[in-house]
Amino acid sequence: MNPNNNQLILEDFKVGVDNVIFSIDSQKNRLLVLLVKRTEDPYINQWGLPGTLVRKGESLEAAAYRILSEKIEANNLYLEQLYTFGGPNRDPRESPDSYGVRYLSVSYFALVRFEEAKLITNHHQTTWYMIEKTPSLAFDHNVILDYGYQRLKSKLEYSPVAFDVLPELFTLNDLYQFYTTVLGENFADYSNFRTRLLKLGFLIDTEKKVSRGAGRPATLYRFDSEAFAPLKDKPFVFI
Amino acid sequence: MNPNNNQLILEDFKVGVDNVIFSIDSQKNRLLVLLVKRTEDPYINQWGLPGTLVRKGESLEAAAYRILSEKIEANNLYLEQLYTFGGPNRDPRESPDSYGVRYLSVSYFALVRFEEAKLITNHHQTTWYMIEKTPSLAFDHNVILDYGYQRLKSKLEYSPVAFDVLPELFTLNDLYQFYTTVLGENFADYSNFRTRLLKLGFLIDTEKKVSRGAGRPATLYRFDSEAFAPLKDKPFVFI
Repeated sequence: MNPNNNQLILEDFKVGVDNVIFSIDSQKNRLLVLLVKRTEDPYINQWGLPGTLVRKGESLEAAAYRILSEKIEANNLYLEQLYTFGGPNRDPRESPDSYGVRYLSVSYFALVRFEEAKLITNHHQTTWYMIEKTPSLAFDHNVILDYGYQRLKSKLEYSPVAFDVLPELFTLNDLYQFYTTVLGENFADYSNFRTRLLKLGFLIDTEKKVSRGAGRPATLYRFDSEAFAPLKDKPFVFI
Repeated sequence: MNPNNNQLILEDFKVGVDNVIFSIDSQKNRLLVLLVKRTEDPYINQWGLPGTLVRKGESLEAAAYRILSEKIEANNLYLEQLYTFGGPNRDPRESPDSYGVRYLSVSYFALVRFEEAKLITNHHQTTWYMIEKTPSLAFDHNVILDYGYQRLKSKLEYSPVAFDVLPELFTLNDLYQFYTTVLGENFADYSNFRTRLLKLGFLIDTEKKVSRGAGRPATLYRFDSEAFAPLKDKPFVFI
């Protein structure tokens, strides 16, 4: 193929990184997503996911961490790549009478510990939204958010991601509330949940107790990542 | 921020799509991956994953299907996005004395039915490789292939992707061989596998039998996607 023809038909891209950052307010049993108010066109003054365009020499993951560090301080967090949205016409800046380049978004999914996460910018610009109250977002960010929410739910089902953001010591009820907040009330009853998890052998009874309101003091557990390790790569066919 | 400064520090990208296309030769119990021999620099004459650069107006997924259709004819296939590899220096064409743009790869994962897939170009240019005999590939394609192989294994564990590429009617032993070819001999013993799958209720006994070599004729089953549907969104916590 003639390289000049080739160059003519290939698309030029800028690459954005957008983060779907979740947190769980365990006091209020709320699943939250971090949104920022846009201060520039397009979609000025509309809420959207925190994002940035990738700079020269910067890896995608470095850009994702850069967004996080500009918006919140968080020591305990989990981050992974989510999905790449790259269809034509997803960004108004693509119009031929604008810059004439396509904008692709590599989205990342993050989960941070709510109690420790400090918002850096002020509340009017950056805030936690309850997932069910999310407004109409800039670009295709509602689609990206939905995708992230699905990922969060499935991660909870087969990976120990919850323990990255729960306190080191927790009761089984804390863990159950965490799951219920994300997966809904009907995902499992408490007694089945308790039996299953204890049977898997990666929750260690610390022999410490804690009193919360009325009722008997509850046992505090911790997650044992070494005990989980052999489960990690074990295939569980359809179970 | 001054838009001119902004433009200076942002990276310019070309976006490639690379496909990890798997197939299972059930006659020989071999897991295969489709490789192509490069006919252009960089990495001329070296094997790599089939890929392309995204054209003006083309979606990422359309580019992934275009690669497939240029290399093989396949009616029964499964395709999904895998991961985006976008670190700096993954492509020799990025060097500043070349074009000065970055090359990002959005990878796709595909599974095709071996018996039906016809290679379009000749064997010296496009061929099925046994996964354990994969040579050193162009770019970071060995890393992408490894990532795809992990995805294939985990898809088999929690999704019905196997039924997209198995024949419509199959014996439980066919299905077990399919799983064993991908997951290795030790993933589960046949009797447990059989019991588990039948219990889940989405395999329908067609009351037809087939004879293969010695031994009693075996029952032919078909996959019932409606019976699977309720399982699809049911959370299975750590089981």
